[in-house]
Amino acid sequence: MIRLVVLGSGASLPTLQRHNTSVALQRDGDLFLVDCGEGTQLQWRRAGLRFSKLRAVLISHLHGDHINGLIGFLQTLSLSDRTAPLDLLGPPGIRDYIRAAREHLGLRLTYKLNVGEHSDGVIYEGSDYRIACDTLDHGVATLGFALEEDARAGRFDTEAAESLGIPAGPLFGALQRGESVTLESGKVVEPSEVLGPPRAGKRVAYCVDTRPTESAVRLASGANLFLCDSTFGNDLTEEAGRRGHSTAAQAAAMAVRAGAERLLLIHISARYHDSRQLVSEAVAVFPQSRVAEDLMELSV
Amino acid sequence: MIRLVVLGSGASLPTLQRHNTSVALQRDGDLFLVDCGEGTQLQWRRAGLRFSKLRAVLISHLHGDHINGLIGFLQTLSLSDRTAPLDLLGPPGIRDYIRAAREHLGLRLTYKLNVGEHSDGVIYEGSDYRIACDTLDHGVATLGFALEEDARAGRFDTEAAESLGIPAGPLFGALQRGESVTLESGKVVEPSEVLGPPRAGKRVAYCVDTRPTESAVRLASGANLFLCDSTFGNDLTEEAGRRGHSTAAQAAAMAVRAGAERLLLIHISARYHDSRQLVSEAVAVFPQSRVAEDLMELSV
Repeated sequence: MIRLVVLGSGASLPTLQRHNTSVALQRDGDLFLVDCGEGTQLQWRRAGLRFSKLRAVLISHLHGDHINGLIGFLQTLSLSDRTAPLDLLGPPGIRDYIRAAREHLGLRLTYKLNVGEHSDGVIYEGSDYRIACDTLDHGVATLGFALEEDARAGRFDTEAAESLGIPAGPLFGALQRGESVTLESGKVVEPSEVLGPPRAGKRVAYCVDTRPTESAVRLASGANLFLCDSTFGNDLTEEAGRRGHSTAAQAAAMAVRAGAERLLLIHISARYHDSRQLVSEAVAVFPQSRVAEDLMELSV
Repeated sequence: MIRLVVLGSGASLPTLQRHNTSVALQRDGDLFLVDCGEGTQLQWRRAGLRFSKLRAVLISHLHGDHINGLIGFLQTLSLSDRTAPLDLLGPPGIRDYIRAAREHLGLRLTYKLNVGEHSDGVIYEGSDYRIACDTLDHGVATLGFALEEDARAGRFDTEAAESLGIPAGPLFGALQRGESVTLESGKVVEPSEVLGPPRAGKRVAYCVDTRPTESAVRLASGANLFLCDSTFGNDLTEEAGRRGHSTAAQAAAMAVRAGAERLLLIHISARYHDSRQLVSEAVAVFPQSRVAEDLMELSV
C-alpha cells in the first residue's frame, strides 16, 4: 500500500489555507518527501509524520516555492540527531544550491547527504518498489516522479488448486510465491496452473510544475493516483502556458491519455479561494478528479 | 507608540508552539520585520499585518533559523506586486546570500532591494525615530538592534503659564512646539519657563542571538522593552556559553545593568516545553521579566 499525505497544495504564494505544494509518500516503513517549500517541516509535524522514517527527499525544481523549506528541513533532521545517510534527489543545479547553503549559512549536518542530480530514469530502488523520474516542461530543469511497486503475483485460484488435488496448506503458499510443487502422487504443478495473470504494482505519479507534456503522461501511465499541476482554471489557460503551468482541465486531459485511475489537482493558485471551478472543469474531462487540500490523506 | 508582535519565539528548532524567533515592530504607519526564519510570512499573515506597510527587513545574522524564511518573504512581496523599494539591513555576508539566491533560484523581484551590510551605528532614519545596531557576541557576525524615538518636549505646566499671564489658546501650542512667544504686554516667554525637562523617546532593543555582552547592555540602555536571547535555563549555562547564547538569568542580569523597564525572554529552546523555569530564573534577577509567546502583542 502507498499512503500519501498532502503537506501543501498551493502554488507560489503560500497562504494559511494552502502551503506551497509538497507531499509525503509512504511505502510501508519508508517515507519520502516530495518538494519542500517554506513551512513543510511544520506541516510534516502537523501530519504526525516521523522524521526518522525519511529515506529520501525529492525536489522537482529549484523554484523557491518548491525548495525554500529544504535547508530548514535538513537542519531540523540534524537537530533531531539523525545519523543515517539521506538521499537528496533533484534536477541539475541542486548540488550547487546545497553548496551555497553550506557556504553562506555555515550549514553543517550530522548525517551524510547524498545529493543526486537527475534528468530521467530510476533514482531510488526500494525492496519491491522504485522511484523513477523524467523531465517535465516548466522552463527550468524540472522533474516529475513516479513511485511504482513491483508487479505482484496473480490471484490464487483455490478451486483450480483443489481440482488438481493439491491439499490446502504449505503447498498453496509455495505456489503463491511462484514455486512449482510436487504432489504425493509425483505430479508436478506449476504456479501458472493456479495463479491468475500477474497484477501490476500500484503506481503514484507527481508532475508539478509543468505544462501539458508527453513525459508527464508517460509517468502517469496506468497510475492509480496522478498528482498534477493544476495552477489555473480555463479562464487563465493562456497564462498557464506562458508561465509553464497546466490548467485543471489540461491535467484531466493528461490523466485521460495516461489511463490513470484517479487525478488529484494540486499546486492551486491562491486566487482560487473556492476550488469548485477547477474541480468542475477537470471532472468534465476526467470524472475521477478531486482537488488536494492541505493535510489530506490518500491511500492507494 | 511602538507596537511589537512576536512572530516567533523559539530557538533553532521550529515547532508548532514556537516558530523561529522573529518580531514585527510598528512605529505609527511604519512596519519593520526583525529576523525571518522559516514560516515568518505565514505568521505575518496570522498576525494580520500588512505587507504594504513594510519599510525594512532587519536580519541579525546568517543562521538558518533567522534567515530561512527571507527568500520566500521577499518573493511574496513580489507576488503582492510591491514596487516600493525595500531596505534589507544585516551583517556582512547578507549581500552574498542574496546574490546566491538570485543565482540558484532565479530570484527576481518587482521592487528594488537595497541591501546594507552593517556592524554598528544608525541604519534607518524615520521621521522622528531611528534604528541603530551594534555587534553582539555569537561566534558569527551578529547584530543587535534598537529602535529609538526622538526625545519629546517636556510636560506643559498650565499653572505656570497662567501665572505668567499667557492666555489659553494658540500661544500654548507655540510654546509646546518649542517656540518663544510675545505677550500683548510685550513680555517674551521662553518655552523653558512653562515646559518640564524633555522626556526621553521610547526605546525597544532586540539582542538575539548573543552571549552576555556589553554591546547588548548598551543597546538596551534605558529601554522600555528589551528582547533578549534566553535560549537556556540555569541548568545549561555552560552549554549557552559554548553555543553563543544566553540563559534567561543572564538576560535578566543584562536588563538590570541596562536599566531597562521590561524584559521579554525570547529564542526559547524547544526543550523547555514549560517555560516557567526560565521565567522564575529571570524574575529572581529582574522582576519585570516575562516570556515571549508566538503572536503575543506588546505596546510601548
